[in-house]
Amino acid sequence: MPDVVTMDKIVSLARRRGFVFPSSEIYGGLGSSYDYGHYGVLMKENVKARWLEAMVRERDDIVALDSSIILHPSVWRASGHVAGFTDPLVDCRHCKLRFRADQLEEAQCGARPSKHPGETELCDLTEPRQFNLMFQTRIGALEETGLDAYLRPETAQGIFVNFKNVAQIARRKPPFGIAQLGKAFRNEITPGNFIFRTLEFEMMEMEYFVPPESAEHWHRYWIDERLAWYRRFGIRESHLRVRAHESDELSHYSSATSDIEYLFPIGWSELEGIANRGDYDLTAHSEASGTRLEWVDSATGERYVPYVVEPAAGVNRSLLAFLVDSYDEEVVAERPRTVLRLHPEIAPVKAAILPLVPRDAEMSTRARNLYEELRRAMVAEYDDSGQIGRRYRRQDEIGTPFALTVDEQTVEDETVTIRDRDSLAQERIPIAGARSFVLDRLAQEWKTSKAD
Amino acid sequence: MPDVVTMDKIVSLARRRGFVFPSSEIYGGLGSSYDYGHYGVLMKENVKARWLEAMVRERDDIVALDSSIILHPSVWRASGHVAGFTDPLVDCRHCKLRFRADQLEEAQCGARPSKHPGETELCDLTEPRQFNLMFQTRIGALEETGLDAYLRPETAQGIFVNFKNVAQIARRKPPFGIAQLGKAFRNEITPGNFIFRTLEFEMMEMEYFVPPESAEHWHRYWIDERLAWYRRFGIRESHLRVRAHESDELSHYSSATSDIEYLFPIGWSELEGIANRGDYDLTAHSEASGTRLEWVDSATGERYVPYVVEPAAGVNRSLLAFLVDSYDEEVVAERPRTVLRLHPEIAPVKAAILPLVPRDAEMSTRARNLYEELRRAMVAEYDDSGQIGRRYRRQDEIGTPFALTVDEQTVEDETVTIRDRDSLAQERIPIAGARSFVLDRLAQEWKTSKAD
Repeated sequence: MPDVVTMDKIVSLARRRGFVFPSSEIYGGLGSSYDYGHYGVLMKENVKARWLEAMVRERDDIVALDSSIILHPSVWRASGHVAGFTDPLVDCRHCKLRFRADQLEEAQCGARPSKHPGETELCDLTEPRQFNLMFQTRIGALEETGLDAYLRPETAQGIFVNFKNVAQIARRKPPFGIAQLGKAFRNEITPGNFIFRTLEFEMMEMEYFVPPESAEHWHRYWIDERLAWYRRFGIRESHLRVRAHESDELSHYSSATSDIEYLFPIGWSELEGIANRGDYDLTAHSEASGTRLEWVDSATGERYVPYVVEPAAGVNRSLLAFLVDSYDEEVVAERPRTVLRLHPEIAPVKAAILPLVPRDAEMSTRARNLYEELRRAMVAEYDDSGQIGRRYRRQDEIGTPFALTVDEQTVEDETVTIRDRDSLAQERIPIAGARSFVLDRLAQEWKTSKAD
Repeated sequence: MPDVVTMDKIVSLARRRGFVFPSSEIYGGLGSSYDYGHYGVLMKENVKARWLEAMVRERDDIVALDSSIILHPSVWRASGHVAGFTDPLVDCRHCKLRFRADQLEEAQCGARPSKHPGETELCDLTEPRQFNLMFQTRIGALEETGLDAYLRPETAQGIFVNFKNVAQIARRKPPFGIAQLGKAFRNEITPGNFIFRTLEFEMMEMEYFVPPESAEHWHRYWIDERLAWYRRFGIRESHLRVRAHESDELSHYSSATSDIEYLFPIGWSELEGIANRGDYDLTAHSEASGTRLEWVDSATGERYVPYVVEPAAGVNRSLLAFLVDSYDEEVVAERPRTVLRLHPEIAPVKAAILPLVPRDAEMSTRARNLYEELRRAMVAEYDDSGQIGRRYRRQDEIGTPFALTVDEQTVEDETVTIRDRDSLAQERIPIAGARSFVLDRLAQEWKTSKAD
């Protein structure tokens, strides 16, 4: 797969089919910012819905939360982010460009381009200084009286500061979790690789509060659960691996972190981090706020500060993994075909309804009726523009599992052809049973058609 | 209704049942910021899903978009927001407090509290100055080389700057629309009234691009559509009205705006604005960016800048309206009852499954099985803690339409009671048919039980 799928191909398809556009493009773009078009939105909604189902709806021990992006600035002082959420940066004295001190292998002086291609001209670098990755802003209209504030760099802190309220109302005892979907922002000096790392991104985080002695058990449990989630929605086993952080790469709050890595076109890279945050956060907020964030068992009087296990995934990065993993090119009847072999629950559109000859009233009426019936049960698309071959190609490229074509024979015997995106097999089925046919197929366990 | 429902009662219920918490509460709160608990998240998700269905899924002429919160700063210069999105503010020379010059009836000097209750001590005010309502931030690590940027105060501009990309790919001609859900931020000096006006809020905006000569027609069309949407999900007709803006209150981009107003406890206030933005935005971005944002008919060669009709609603404000409109108190069998008479599609939980005697294994097994069956089809809740009366009260207060109770008789004849939230009628039905019974009732047209 990595030989075939390059990031350029993914970027090109995503743009061509309206999944992802460079943000503010008419103004020359804005570094690593991206806007999501129609299919990108639908696919992102699917990723988030599947996560929320697996995390909240299919379980009894996790509740949902949606906290603010701008929290009280004390939250970020207590959490350690004001002091510790920094990158070491160096400046080149010649070209004035700025680089991450821990990524100097990529640093090249902008004012002294190498005369010999392949040679890298080194910069004359300053000593590293620490720069905070949080975007800053100010609440209130006046410089003098306003309040410095930050855009959250993770959604987790909004969960910790609400711990007491939620635990009381949810009437649950550890182990229990609080799950949150939402945007976060990081003022990265080196974002890049399309939607892999951007200034603004959507997170899917869950904080699982457990008795301290069982934290290691739950850490392993959540690594397994999250791996299973990616596999369940079609990511190839061979493109997933787990890597434990070395002690020198652990975040300031973490006692152990394992990354689920995916084999992106840029190589093995983090897809999701699963951290054992210990009691770091609840203890820090208890001390800073004077509110005891702990678990009190009303029956036994037992009280303790729970440990926290956190699976933290990125929506955009997951979307990229789903695109990369499903991207395929093949030659069919001597013509090239690009297809996204997406899991039906991730695919933005489930079924396309295509009248073979759109200006034929008999065909278009039947196709339209079938479309109206299907769209009540799933995201369906009616496409009557262009040659049928082009329409199939369009649906293949957005990963639509089923295409239903209304043709001459439909008018005679009220049957349609249903084309399978992956096998390209075509079957004739009665139009009256088409809706149930598609629903049944969508409900079946999905067998990947991907080469390993 | 306004006599019964006060904002205090809504705030209290929202907090008590975990819909909405004050944000950063353990740090003393943060002005008008709120976090959403489990039921608040579920209800917000329902509001957004119903909007997206009505705007995108049930139509062929509108596509979805999700643009960045931080756009290129040129976007906000071109849109007129840097120059014109301001409030006139005055300072009190005595107490140094700041007030909106257009809301001075609420201004009271903080340093000179009135000695006679009821009398208002006036401030000694400066001349008004204009303050921009956009939150500012900075991209890049350095003050000198960074780029000033803004948090979007509306999602609309992200749609306008993507107009060309989307129109090309969506292969649609006017009238067609682009819909977007997402957060926006306004550095308001006087936010307030619970979640009615907050610094950070979620918008549901749709920009509908039309031939200029039909803009007035579509403006009226969208006012009617949006009114129908609120009624469809249970808002009382008598608590909705449409008010056209006077010319002196129009936004800088609007040639005509009508507000759909709702009778909140604070009086008639804006629920949604439907504006005719004319060609203001597309023209402004065409001039500033050098990219012609216009419609070109490839068949006829006709080209023009479409007019834009924009229904812009707030998720949080809609949620507040749904809470207020459904809130009811009554006395049943000499005991007070608080109930949210929410439309089933808006209610966070559709069905609660309650074992009458939780420690009875026969009852709890049956209740648990029924719960597992129901939760696959809807958001269901299993509640076995506390007296049955308390459990009913809890479900009434979160607006759960149906409560299914497993009791002694269930063990004998495999039937359960199903209790209707609004009528309080209880029926006995076979446990085997309970799932279909609830699904059928949820699918029926909902008749409001609210007093007018």
